[in-house]
Amino acid sequence: MSEQQDTSKLWGGRFSEATDSFVQRFTASVNFDQRMAAEDITGSLAHAEMLTRVGVLSADELQQIQDGLARVRQEIEDGSFQWSIELEDVHMNIEARLTELIGITGKKLHTGRSRNDQVATDIRLYLRGAIDLIAAELTRLQAGTIELAAANSDTIMPGFTHLQTAQPVTFGHHLLAWNEMLQRDYGRLMDCRARMNQSPLGAAALAGTTYPIDRAQTAAALGFDKPTENSLDSVSDRDFAIEFSAFAALLMTHLSRMSEELVVWTSAQFYFIELPDRFCTGSSIMPQKKNPDVPELVRGKVGRVNGHLVSLLTLMKSQPLAYNKDNQEDKEPLFDTVDTVLDSLRAFADMVPAIQPRKEQMREAARSGFSTATDLADYLVGLGLPFRDAHEVVGKAVAHGVEQGLDLAEMSLATLQGFCADIGEDVFEVLTLEGSVSARNHTGGTAPAQVAAAAERARALVLAR
Amino acid sequence: MSEQQDTSKLWGGRFSEATDSFVQRFTASVNFDQRMAAEDITGSLAHAEMLTRVGVLSADELQQIQDGLARVRQEIEDGSFQWSIELEDVHMNIEARLTELIGITGKKLHTGRSRNDQVATDIRLYLRGAIDLIAAELTRLQAGTIELAAANSDTIMPGFTHLQTAQPVTFGHHLLAWNEMLQRDYGRLMDCRARMNQSPLGAAALAGTTYPIDRAQTAAALGFDKPTENSLDSVSDRDFAIEFSAFAALLMTHLSRMSEELVVWTSAQFYFIELPDRFCTGSSIMPQKKNPDVPELVRGKVGRVNGHLVSLLTLMKSQPLAYNKDNQEDKEPLFDTVDTVLDSLRAFADMVPAIQPRKEQMREAARSGFSTATDLADYLVGLGLPFRDAHEVVGKAVAHGVEQGLDLAEMSLATLQGFCADIGEDVFEVLTLEGSVSARNHTGGTAPAQVAAAAERARALVLAR
Amino acid sequence: MSEQQDTSKLWGGRFSEATDSFVQRFTASVNFDQRMAAEDITGSLAHAEMLTRVGVLSADELQQIQDGLARVRQEIEDGSFQWSIELEDVHMNIEARLTELIGITGKKLHTGRSRNDQVATDIRLYLRGAIDLIAAELTRLQAGTIELAAANSDTIMPGFTHLQTAQPVTFGHHLLAWNEMLQRDYGRLMDCRARMNQSPLGAAALAGTTYPIDRAQTAAALGFDKPTENSLDSVSDRDFAIEFSAFAALLMTHLSRMSEELVVWTSAQFYFIELPDRFCTGSSIMPQKKNPDVPELVRGKVGRVNGHLVSLLTLMKSQPLAYNKDNQEDKEPLFDTVDTVLDSLRAFADMVPAIQPRKEQMREAARSGFSTATDLADYLVGLGLPFRDAHEVVGKAVAHGVEQGLDLAEMSLATLQGFCADIGEDVFEVLTLEGSVSARNHTGGTAPAQVAAAAERARALVLAR
Amino acid sequence: MSEQQDTSKLWGGRFSEATDSFVQRFTASVNFDQRMAAEDITGSLAHAEMLTRVGVLSADELQQIQDGLARVRQEIEDGSFQWSIELEDVHMNIEARLTELIGITGKKLHTGRSRNDQVATDIRLYLRGAIDLIAAELTRLQAGTIELAAANSDTIMPGFTHLQTAQPVTFGHHLLAWNEMLQRDYGRLMDCRARMNQSPLGAAALAGTTYPIDRAQTAAALGFDKPTENSLDSVSDRDFAIEFSAFAALLMTHLSRMSEELVVWTSAQFYFIELPDRFCTGSSIMPQKKNPDVPELVRGKVGRVNGHLVSLLTLMKSQPLAYNKDNQEDKEPLFDTVDTVLDSLRAFADMVPAIQPRKEQMREAARSGFSTATDLADYLVGLGLPFRDAHEVVGKAVAHGVEQGLDLAEMSLATLQGFCADIGEDVFEVLTLEGSVSARNHTGGTAPAQVAAAAERARALVLAR
Repeated sequence: MSEQQDTSKLWGGRFSEATDSFVQRFTASVNFDQRMAAEDITGSLAHAEMLTRVGVLSADELQQIQDGLARVRQEIEDGSFQWSIELEDVHMNIEARLTELIGITGKKLHTGRSRNDQVATDIRLYLRGAIDLIAAELTRLQAGTIELAAANSDTIMPGFTHLQTAQPVTFGHHLLAWNEMLQRDYGRLMDCRARMNQSPLGAAALAGTTYPIDRAQTAAALGFDKPTENSLDSVSDRDFAIEFSAFAALLMTHLSRMSEELVVWTSAQFYFIELPDRFCTGSSIMPQKKNPDVPELVRGKVGRVNGHLVSLLTLMKSQPLAYNKDNQEDKEPLFDTVDTVLDSLRAFADMVPAIQPRKEQMREAARSGFSTATDLADYLVGLGLPFRDAHEVVGKAVAHGVEQGLDLAEMSLATLQGFCADIGEDVFEVLTLEGSVSARNHTGGTAPAQVAAAAERARALVLAR
Repeated sequence: MSEQQDTSKLWGGRFSEATDSFVQRFTASVNFDQRMAAEDITGSLAHAEMLTRVGVLSADELQQIQDGLARVRQEIEDGSFQWSIELEDVHMNIEARLTELIGITGKKLHTGRSRNDQVATDIRLYLRGAIDLIAAELTRLQAGTIELAAANSDTIMPGFTHLQTAQPVTFGHHLLAWNEMLQRDYGRLMDCRARMNQSPLGAAALAGTTYPIDRAQTAAALGFDKPTENSLDSVSDRDFAIEFSAFAALLMTHLSRMSEELVVWTSAQFYFIELPDRFCTGSSIMPQKKNPDVPELVRGKVGRVNGHLVSLLTLMKSQPLAYNKDNQEDKEPLFDTVDTVLDSLRAFADMVPAIQPRKEQMREAARSGFSTATDLADYLVGLGLPFRDAHEVVGKAVAHGVEQGLDLAEMSLATLQGFCADIGEDVFEVLTLEGSVSARNHTGGTAPAQVAAAAERARALVLAR
Repeated sequence: MSEQQDTSKLWGGRFSEATDSFVQRFTASVNFDQRMAAEDITGSLAHAEMLTRVGVLSADELQQIQDGLARVRQEIEDGSFQWSIELEDVHMNIEARLTELIGITGKKLHTGRSRNDQVATDIRLYLRGAIDLIAAELTRLQAGTIELAAANSDTIMPGFTHLQTAQPVTFGHHLLAWNEMLQRDYGRLMDCRARMNQSPLGAAALAGTTYPIDRAQTAAALGFDKPTENSLDSVSDRDFAIEFSAFAALLMTHLSRMSEELVVWTSAQFYFIELPDRFCTGSSIMPQKKNPDVPELVRGKVGRVNGHLVSLLTLMKSQPLAYNKDNQEDKEPLFDTVDTVLDSLRAFADMVPAIQPRKEQMREAARSGFSTATDLADYLVGLGLPFRDAHEVVGKAVAHGVEQGLDLAEMSLATLQGFCADIGEDVFEVLTLEGSVSARNHTGGTAPAQVAAAAERARALVLAR
Repeated sequence: MSEQQDTSKLWGGRFSEATDSFVQRFTASVNFDQRMAAEDITGSLAHAEMLTRVGVLSADELQQIQDGLARVRQEIEDGSFQWSIELEDVHMNIEARLTELIGITGKKLHTGRSRNDQVATDIRLYLRGAIDLIAAELTRLQAGTIELAAANSDTIMPGFTHLQTAQPVTFGHHLLAWNEMLQRDYGRLMDCRARMNQSPLGAAALAGTTYPIDRAQTAAALGFDKPTENSLDSVSDRDFAIEFSAFAALLMTHLSRMSEELVVWTSAQFYFIELPDRFCTGSSIMPQKKNPDVPELVRGKVGRVNGHLVSLLTLMKSQPLAYNKDNQEDKEPLFDTVDTVLDSLRAFADMVPAIQPRKEQMREAARSGFSTATDLADYLVGLGLPFRDAHEVVGKAVAHGVEQGLDLAEMSLATLQGFCADIGEDVFEVLTLEGSVSARNHTGGTAPAQVAAAAERARALVLAR
């Protein structure tokens, strides 16, 4: 960091002593907000063009600014730009360098705006870009999930409630449940994008400006849908960061649920799937280990994102309008949330299609856990028993099975008739896994035909984006 | 609570000992989920009608169920219903009473569904109703805010940044900043409603059912847009509760910011507004006190709602599919969030229109805080100084004013010319409050004409709902 | 709720209109703070005795107050007390009833105190009592855990990292890891108790009082260690609630980890333990289900407690001193945290000693997951290989075993020598489970002798309380 | 980052494909855990010395390791060390470089430990050091606060409740309320330090080790009070991070409350204090601004710390034992919490002693807000009125004063007697500010003598550390 310049000169008239050097470092944001340098330049260019059109800047001045900012952009990209703590933030750093390069015209760029609306503009541009990257990765993950589901529309596994075997389902059906969560996440992300895509530029410090600016022009030039409605709100609003973080927390919660299942499924005791070695790591001390690091790490990262959401909500609690220095604290949680979501989605989008279901193990687990007990109860209802009574009969048969180490389908007809005399030979069809899943044949049900059709609908939705 | 019945009989076949009585109380939900009794009955009626249409129930059975549920509803409404902890939850309590009333047909009602999809349906019906009530109160608050803004489009007050006098704004402009926050909240609420309005009924325990149900019929009968897509997701999804809570946390954050301003504004030192006595309370010990209890309490309640959001996110973190008992914990935070939001909005919708601005005090504060310093700088720019130099000149004039106890408009022309010789008599127009606010005359700016137009646009949006 | 009385009369002199009736309900706390009625009366008695000793009240007045409060306490206990929303809170309800009973002397009780220090005293008394109940349940849970550990000091199970089989451990060793978490929780609870056990009584509204009170006397009478140091702090401080909530969040986090293990261990795939039927529930639709409801519910309840912690932190963020109405929001999260912790501990203290380890299943799982691979590597190091090379050799042997479906101990000596020629017959001792666990024979290690000794030390610590 | 090495070689025997390069980056921690390099080396030295004493390493090997680690430490300090993502973490980076430097002996250093206990040791050493730095800054802030309080034991200001003038207090009294909060924070910090100062080294992967290690020796060498009790707990426990974060969240909450007051007090409307220019910044657009940036920023930073606490609690929720990859996520929130707390304390410890009270403004505010109304009521009680009636009388006098723009002390005796005929000339002594504060003369009260004595006690406590 260079130390030759100092913003305090920029507001020094009223001040009788220099800023304490620790305070300068403590209050500076350039270490993290330089990440928005590209957006800051983009915003400045749109502002300068507008100022020219409304007559505040001359065409020549505009050209100087454009040339100067192009050079600044180049310096930042190639790493030769000298960032300075004394210049506080990305905005003053860029403006100071511009003025160094083109002289007094550089100072005119700030006409009709303030850092308050400038930072509000930069961060919206940044977040909009991040949203578009996230949407792409989310789509890729959904596409991979749907294809794996389609390929496993008839792969039978036990469905669980309370982590206890409940009823047989298909692996494809389970994967489509994942896709439903992600589909809602996508909807929330798009809603967030639509709501935040308005231009605060022109709000100036808090009240607007006395210069004859054209906010519609800068809004259009920057790809915003329209200017914001109120200048005080424009510089104090951080809703977009909170709404995005809430989206992110829920998405990460979903990924944590999938992660939990992947971790459980790769345990020696379940062993329903195999994760390719490239997504796992070993142990420095235990030679046999193959650890599902990626899902574990993603499961942990939900904490980080939930934490950032709390940070932002706490930050904004009971802040009076309009801008307060507190708001500088919005950026680091937001940046880290974006990075975490992008990386986690990328890891999952790579990994999920590579999941190898161990079909025999899944089937065996479904076969042996009394998973068709509900089907037997339904069969008894078909014979005329009220459901509650059928439930009782099957419960006794299961208790017998637990004792004898036999699943329902492994009992003899005579044994079953011991629990209900009306049971016939046809019961064994009901007790098969295929019979059980195929019978759940309605929208949303686990019948393979339904799963295949659901995958087709899901695929169409994703392709239509 | 009556103790004569016991759900454990309903799943007792597999069990060899009764539930521990403390465990029964600990795991029961009827104390809080009875709040969804009306929705539970509504859902059951739709289910019964569908079962009849597809031939599972006879018309006579349907009639018995309808009559029985009407009686149950009546008993609940008049308080004569006997809730029982032994029957665990609202669903079993109602079903048991129905069966008591109409006999074996009551047990048939549960055909083709499970408590897992039943509770998912009930809670969505409940939340949808709550959303509609909240939308109405939010609209009422916005309407009142907009009218107060319109009536104060030219009431001058100091605009603050860092709680330091920044530039003059109008009180109407400030109030419309509040409205912008609320307008975004309304948008988020409607997005949440749209996303959650799908019917999980028919998902059964987790995999769908073997009965020939018609999910589209029950969805339509219950006012849902369509059935959910995936049965596993339907019983495990609590996104709607989290998305709603995130909406609520942000809304309450907004109300906390307004509250903070109301508290500061009613302090003896600011005294910008008067709150009617009916929204304040006194002190049992200090006879002079008139405390702004309502905004203080609302400011405190943001904590409660943020906390519930964290509860729900923590709850769902790393839960495997499909249903787990953990999910029972979703209701209390959701109910309390709904109550808190409704009450807080009601209090604000009553109070905001009754705010009495103390215009002279506001104007005096604006007049005396160097609030037109930026206007003087802009004036100097008009004389040809670069903005940064003009800023320096004005800074010195302000430092002089602080020392002498004079505002800029109170200095003589000669004094002002001591800072910049080119200043002319016309500077005093610029230094007036009216001149300052009127000059910020663009979309979103604080000029009274802009504020009036913005209030008009805001009113139209609210009326169009 | 009776409506005949109204606190507004108590501060009505300065007010020109009555409180809005919705506002009255909205701002009242009596619905929840009546829970502190016993503490309120206890505090009042100590205050009255002190006022008598310093000469503010006469002995006769004290007697009237004592008799009156005894009657009030009785009415509250037997449910005949008429709580009134109009009287706002527990304090005014009790004082009003007292005055009704004993006349003007009742009003004198409030001399030299304010509701601000009164509520601060009540809530500390309440919380101190709650802490003592929680300490007792926590001790009971620890005692039960330690006994189960002692009984299973040599029961072998697989130890997991990443939910993958890592090394054999004993079940007792695993249980003592639980106890260590709880032991730290106990320490935090005691630290919290010690820090909060100071008397705020006498701080009055915020500045102390002009009456000649004796704060040391009331502190001693109420079992506090001493009076608080500063009156402003005394009425604004809610640290005790936050520190307690942080204790509770960490304790519940520990219970959630134990719960997760119990849920996984009772799954059909692991089936390491059996939970008695009385701690489980069944399914209304799936007759075979036996669900571990208690651990699942406790796992969910960590969300609730984390949420309350966030509520309280948010509540206090950036509140200026001294008392603000916001603080009324401290009680409900605190009460619910206490209830949740007490119930969860009780459920665990009942359940943990009843856990039935399925020793054969545990042992088989330990035997078959290459859990002694580290022991083989250590053996090779003993033969002179550097550890990293030994690790590589064993890794290859494991890969072979995965392929062939053989554990290390099931390979022939010749096969093992194929990976390292120096391996001798004595390797098979190392590969046994008993050999493996016994070899980890140092403080904190899993050797049965160490586990037994650790259980003994843990027992002594718990008994010494 | 160099790419020439790869940890996967260290556990490659069991793996058939290399780690995906994105996964390698995603799962690596070296970018942030290199912060613990000094602690890692310290821990390794203690481990090596112990291994030598128990005969696992020779004296010569120890010497090589000591020389090698000294060189590594030097390279890290002077910035020449080549960190490598492929080597995952700080531990493997250092070990790999050591082995490069000293050959095969470097590999022997890892005998009898695992990264699981190594990282647990490093992070405790790091945190203990951080705690000691924080304790020093906290002490400095307390000392400065106490001195300012002592110097202002009789500086009168209005005390507030509900941000409404309540009763006069002294500025010193208010500052000592701040000190009480900080004093409790110090106690929590010391409790946390005591609880976490145990050595996990020797827990190895999760079960202990087969080597004849001496855990007591390494514990003592590293300044720990003793070894931890249980190896599984040692590698899975993150309580210390959560307990520390809870301490930090409460401390930052306190700083946010002080910050709020500083911001309010520096507003033009209050203007109770002046902050030196060096702790403030100006505006790039508004020349008159002097913004209290430091307290605003600290107020915002409470969000960050609360968020990290939530991150860590979420992270640990329902993690099964022992170590899981999730735990890697503990470091970044912990590091950032330490940095935030240290910087915020430093800023406050510098700033608080430099606060300049504007005594006249404070006094005037106290004088004009009916702050002695309670004293008048107490005076009337002295005349024989019950407090509640006195309260009513004073309320009416205040209402009259509000109407007439007169404070109580400004009313004539006749006017006052209009409200209560018994009032005498001596009432005006009671209505003075000095009379009011001096009368609150008991422990914790605002009387100057009490404040001076309290400052003395507080000073002694801080000096005794």
